[in-house]
Amino acid sequence: MDIKQMCINASDAAIRMAALDTETKNNALARIALALLENKDKIIEANNADLKRSEEEKLASPLLKRLKFDEKKINDVVEGIKSLIGLVDPVGKTMLSTMLDDGLELYKVTCPIGIIGIIFESRPDALVQISTLCLKSGNSVLLKGGREAKETNRVLADIIEEASVAAGLPKGWINLLESREDVNEMLKMDKYIDLIIPRGSNEFVRYIMDNSKIPVMGHADGICHVYVDKEADLDMAIKVAVDSKTQYVAVCNAAETLLVNEAIAEKFLPALKAEFDKKNVEIFGDEGTQKIIESKPASEADWATEYLDYTISIKIVADVDEAIKHINTYGSGHTDSIITSNKENALKFMNLVDSGNVFWNASTRFCDGYRYGFGAEVGISTSKLHARGPVGLDGLTSYKYKLIGDGHIVDDYATKKKSFKHIKINKSIE
Amino acid sequence: MDIKQMCINASDAAIRMAALDTETKNNALARIALALLENKDKIIEANNADLKRSEEEKLASPLLKRLKFDEKKINDVVEGIKSLIGLVDPVGKTMLSTMLDDGLELYKVTCPIGIIGIIFESRPDALVQISTLCLKSGNSVLLKGGREAKETNRVLADIIEEASVAAGLPKGWINLLESREDVNEMLKMDKYIDLIIPRGSNEFVRYIMDNSKIPVMGHADGICHVYVDKEADLDMAIKVAVDSKTQYVAVCNAAETLLVNEAIAEKFLPALKAEFDKKNVEIFGDEGTQKIIESKPASEADWATEYLDYTISIKIVADVDEAIKHINTYGSGHTDSIITSNKENALKFMNLVDSGNVFWNASTRFCDGYRYGFGAEVGISTSKLHARGPVGLDGLTSYKYKLIGDGHIVDDYATKKKSFKHIKINKSIE
Repeated sequence: MDIKQMCINASDAAIRMAALDTETKNNALARIALALLENKDKIIEANNADLKRSEEEKLASPLLKRLKFDEKKINDVVEGIKSLIGLVDPVGKTMLSTMLDDGLELYKVTCPIGIIGIIFESRPDALVQISTLCLKSGNSVLLKGGREAKETNRVLADIIEEASVAAGLPKGWINLLESREDVNEMLKMDKYIDLIIPRGSNEFVRYIMDNSKIPVMGHADGICHVYVDKEADLDMAIKVAVDSKTQYVAVCNAAETLLVNEAIAEKFLPALKAEFDKKNVEIFGDEGTQKIIESKPASEADWATEYLDYTISIKIVADVDEAIKHINTYGSGHTDSIITSNKENALKFMNLVDSGNVFWNASTRFCDGYRYGFGAEVGISTSKLHARGPVGLDGLTSYKYKLIGDGHIVDDYATKKKSFKHIKINKSIE
Repeated sequence: MDIKQMCINASDAAIRMAALDTETKNNALARIALALLENKDKIIEANNADLKRSEEEKLASPLLKRLKFDEKKINDVVEGIKSLIGLVDPVGKTMLSTMLDDGLELYKVTCPIGIIGIIFESRPDALVQISTLCLKSGNSVLLKGGREAKETNRVLADIIEEASVAAGLPKGWINLLESREDVNEMLKMDKYIDLIIPRGSNEFVRYIMDNSKIPVMGHADGICHVYVDKEADLDMAIKVAVDSKTQYVAVCNAAETLLVNEAIAEKFLPALKAEFDKKNVEIFGDEGTQKIIESKPASEADWATEYLDYTISIKIVADVDEAIKHINTYGSGHTDSIITSNKENALKFMNLVDSGNVFWNASTRFCDGYRYGFGAEVGISTSKLHARGPVGLDGLTSYKYKLIGDGHIVDDYATKKKSFKHIKINKSIE
């Protein structure tokens, strides 16, 4: 099917998706969960074919690991769907209601966005997770997974489509793209597609952002900082710095740069290095750092580098203001943490660092939809428009204003025959 | 000053703007209001120079009228500033607060977006209105007004800058661009500018959207519909249709197409035409309409045309579903109204029409920030991301997540030493 036709179908389906009641959506989710369990063998068989082909094509072993979709992973995504069923429907919530005048009532009500395009790499669980999030939020979805997972993705998409359509969802709400050319076509469909969510490497996300007029939700770099203030508890600072850097290095919320207040650097850095050494963390330091601990010289480029590895850059700063300035200059607006017992500095840091997630005495690794209690995560956004930070179901909705009158016309107000009352009424359309 | 340097200054100022308390911002607004009154003569003098030059340059008379900025207009913008002072500060509001675990608290708090670029045509009141909205929401702003108003805009921007900086605002928060080349430079500053708000003609907005990677908030076309259902009160339908079309034809929320249910067309259309004739409304009708009333033949292009004049297109449809389909195909997602006494059809229409504003028995002309009770309006957005519909102060804010811990690390949760509690706590950071 050509992509434009796919978009037209998805668009027709989107109108009907927007009108689904919560029960229908939850029933569809339950049937999808059941169908995934019932078709376990078929899924694993398809995944084995993907694994075999990818091994032959010498796919790197971390990627092979992410590609693997076994019984445990199937059970995990089914658990995910069950918890999604338990979440409040994000559509149809009344955010505001005002009586503009007698008999003229305004309601601001959440609604789906429409059509979401998702492009993700390797992990097939992303397909299940994201398509079910789109279902619950009433959106149509175009999905493109990695080539390496194509058999698995095909089987998963078919299962989800069949089970959901049997439960009353409109055909066309879920669509799987299969080629790179399809993606390039999709990026041109700004007339139909409302939002693109890319999940993958920096270069990949940047390519999408640079090659489409469709709004993109996500993040390219994740250059996260930990700033150790003068009044930090140094044991705490070491613990948080080590966790932020090493708890899982290949992810966007891992710290890449450590900023250290000059007043405590001589005491702090050697103790920190001892811990980093245990984890084989390579250090690039500024001049001051190099005088205190053994480290490679950091260049300007290091401050803007996302290592995604057991590597960190360290810079000594005069005070919280210099730390804030550094972060706002080199950071990516993702997640930054201050370690201090000085409340004034902490509040200043959290107010002035221009990032979606600003922490006080906590590891940057906490930036995550599940940890935040959102139940499910579409991704993490570094944009300041629409959704920012970890994006859950709410990030897949928009809203519309519904105005209910009794033949009201503006001329009556323009000519002062009537005037507005603007009284909050706190109710929903019944 | 070159535009990049202007952006750097605005960026430095934005950090400080984000930290201003409400009192400082309101004081600054009060001083601006006072300074505008004190400098009344200077403003009128500059405006007279603009008017004189524009008359010589044969500026069209409606534009001359919009350019005029006399004592009444000055009093109007001062009143606007006074009511803005009375509005709740949109920054620093806690939208969500959760205890993730003992001693680990997450807060979702509103904050300014950062730097807003505003491009507007002719009316100098827009400069005052928009810059004070940016002030109240803590944003830096780059402004570019129409060439015809350049003297007035220069004087107004100087007064606003001087009064606000004297009240403690950071220099650089407000910046006036003076040439077309400056605008083209500004459109390239996606590294600094977070949002562009264009206010002007369709072509103008479309040019901005097509020539910048910066997100744009606003609308190009405003193709609004009134659908008269089978079960409409026909007197009400005539009243609302006439108001929607003729109350003010040159604006985005005026109706451009009327959809009429076939069951009532023969009775309704002649009565409607009698009213439209009184206002000299020209009618383009589909075949069915032409059989009932005298009208010019409507072509496919008419359904997608924003006349902004005493002109309307009329189409006969079989039912509410056809009306919805027509609106979702040819509309611009702005404002659409159904006239009916059938609640089921009304709810269906409001749920399925994919527009920011969907009305039942009310004129499309109600779509407006002041009429909605928002107190002030940045513009009307037809985007489904970020702000939709009439955009008030809230549309100039983003939010960030603030997490406050006591040395919490993720490793404790990954290794199951601790587990999340996720308890809503309903409090703010104090």
